[in-house]
Amino acid sequence: MSSPIREQYPWTSSPLIANAAMGDFAGPALATAVSRAGGIGFIGTIIDMKLLDQQLDSAKTLLEDDNSKTAHASSLPIGVGFLLFVAPLDEAIAVIGRHFPAIVWLACPTQEGDFKIWTDAVRKASPDTKIWIQVASVSIALRVAETCSPDILIMQGSDAGGHGPFPGAGIVSLVPETRDALDRKGFSKIGIFAAGGISDGRGVAAALACGADGVVMGTRFLASSEVDMHAESYREALLKTSDGGVSTARSTVFDQLKGKSIWPSQYDGRAIAGSSYKDFKSGTSIAEVQSRYTQASKEAHRGYGDEVRAAVWAGTGVGLVRELKPAGEIVKECRDSARLFLDRAIKLL
Amino acid sequence: MSSPIREQYPWTSSPLIANAAMGDFAGPALATAVSRAGGIGFIGTIIDMKLLDQQLDSAKTLLEDDNSKTAHASSLPIGVGFLLFVAPLDEAIAVIGRHFPAIVWLACPTQEGDFKIWTDAVRKASPDTKIWIQVASVSIALRVAETCSPDILIMQGSDAGGHGPFPGAGIVSLVPETRDALDRKGFSKIGIFAAGGISDGRGVAAALACGADGVVMGTRFLASSEVDMHAESYREALLKTSDGGVSTARSTVFDQLKGKSIWPSQYDGRAIAGSSYKDFKSGTSIAEVQSRYTQASKEAHRGYGDEVRAAVWAGTGVGLVRELKPAGEIVKECRDSARLFLDRAIKLL
Repeated sequence: MSSPIREQYPWTSSPLIANAAMGDFAGPALATAVSRAGGIGFIGTIIDMKLLDQQLDSAKTLLEDDNSKTAHASSLPIGVGFLLFVAPLDEAIAVIGRHFPAIVWLACPTQEGDFKIWTDAVRKASPDTKIWIQVASVSIALRVAETCSPDILIMQGSDAGGHGPFPGAGIVSLVPETRDALDRKGFSKIGIFAAGGISDGRGVAAALACGADGVVMGTRFLASSEVDMHAESYREALLKTSDGGVSTARSTVFDQLKGKSIWPSQYDGRAIAGSSYKDFKSGTSIAEVQSRYTQASKEAHRGYGDEVRAAVWAGTGVGLVRELKPAGEIVKECRDSARLFLDRAIKLL
Repeated sequence: MSSPIREQYPWTSSPLIANAAMGDFAGPALATAVSRAGGIGFIGTIIDMKLLDQQLDSAKTLLEDDNSKTAHASSLPIGVGFLLFVAPLDEAIAVIGRHFPAIVWLACPTQEGDFKIWTDAVRKASPDTKIWIQVASVSIALRVAETCSPDILIMQGSDAGGHGPFPGAGIVSLVPETRDALDRKGFSKIGIFAAGGISDGRGVAAALACGADGVVMGTRFLASSEVDMHAESYREALLKTSDGGVSTARSTVFDQLKGKSIWPSQYDGRAIAGSSYKDFKSGTSIAEVQSRYTQASKEAHRGYGDEVRAAVWAGTGVGLVRELKPAGEIVKECRDSARLFLDRAIKLL
């Protein structure tokens, strides 16, 4: 039995591992490194479409001097993520129509109906581009399946780092319930990628075991050599954080540190539960939290050090991230280890 | 390779599936049905130790007229759960010393040190009784491993229904991080059971794949024929609830519906996010929430119907629970289906 989903991404190997389309972090270096390793690389959301255009040019160049399968793909063998509440539709479509990325990943609309507007526009501009849509509940997954007929639903579990709609469930219940609901409504062909809390091969194995067709990892790739990391102290904060369920938290405070949040009210984000979070939680006014953050951001660590006043986005799997590695190695190790852990689980039966 | 953990529970089959020790719900009928099916049955926490004594007598009787492996076990082949913040230690130990249950499950102490006090007392009264300790973070798991040397750590993920310490992570990151932390400190022999969000064979498969030695299911067994179900409308509410991450919520409000909560402040509970929860969340005073609950509880549905004003404990896996079944069938189906899904995951590679 071969996965019909994998065949749609001919440069890939099983199990399918994608990097999350992390805005400001996932650029062409990360996306191409992931795809070259047989994973599915994504460039994260960018608001400036001229910059995205340049990044896609860079990705193309990076893939040209490659003699792996990625070079022979008919479309550009990486994906691009868009945060619908801020991305400019017309300019985005123009860029998609110029580069034909293999996948467009749609996330976080102001209104659910925006998924359909974007899906139609992308399909018109680039019919072969696959549509991946990120949601976090069974009911929205079903509605999106009906209106947009996406190729993949990215089911984002509550353990995920960064932004998403709340509340939610972990992938262990979210993925099976969504799969059943889709199958009952005749959407068996829509694949499911699991996101949230997956940081190593065991998470990959668990996601596949509960019915996912592939996985998305974000936090793990924040500790890759190719990620765009703006401050070394950010990565240091990640690497030293353990006990991810206790040391991270979902909140809207992280989006208010520099002023009013631009995010629609249905979204929050999971980040390291540092001093800004703790102060806010214990009743400190947002003005005071902002003022303390501003002070900390002037330090050498830019607010990422010591008490972590800045937003360090991380999922509950952050405690499994202990080492900086090339992204390709991360992909290969997780793939190999997933196989080992599935074998181990069967042998224990 | 055979599981050395399974060998300690000679009446069981792989994979190991336990019912959660749900107070007021898991009585001798459920516990014995689960153990007879090769699972690990638990009687849930009871505050009145005379009643527990009677329940253990009933369990013994129920198992005597059985010609399965459970009848030949040296100790009573079920476990008993205790909520440490309310259970009377001396009386509990007397009951344990009279019945020698195979397992004692310790949960929810007022202070962490109570785990050690109980562990020592149980071991003294019944040296062959295995000690299972329920926690929800890596750091507490490590400390409990050091102080109590439990046989099993039950790692309770944030998806779990009913009570637990907050905040927390889903099992997909919690189980692997805990396993690594235990192994690094020389606690490789302590097994891990995963709890939270597991409602079918796919959840079981996922838990095993990410490194658990067995699983605990609560919500699924609330829809078993043998559970002590005090109101049919409670079960109806469960069976009709879907989209578990959205339709359930963790809160302390559920413990305040009948008056002041008896729970220590570090615990909340996950239940169906009905009208009491929604009112409280949107700013209604607790007095008014209580008053509306009291009114609803006088209806025929006792507050479980319609808008669900009563506490209907349920995990995020509730959407996968669609049918009332005998507990033994649930155990066997989940076991068989876990195997199928692990096989499927490997074949997809």
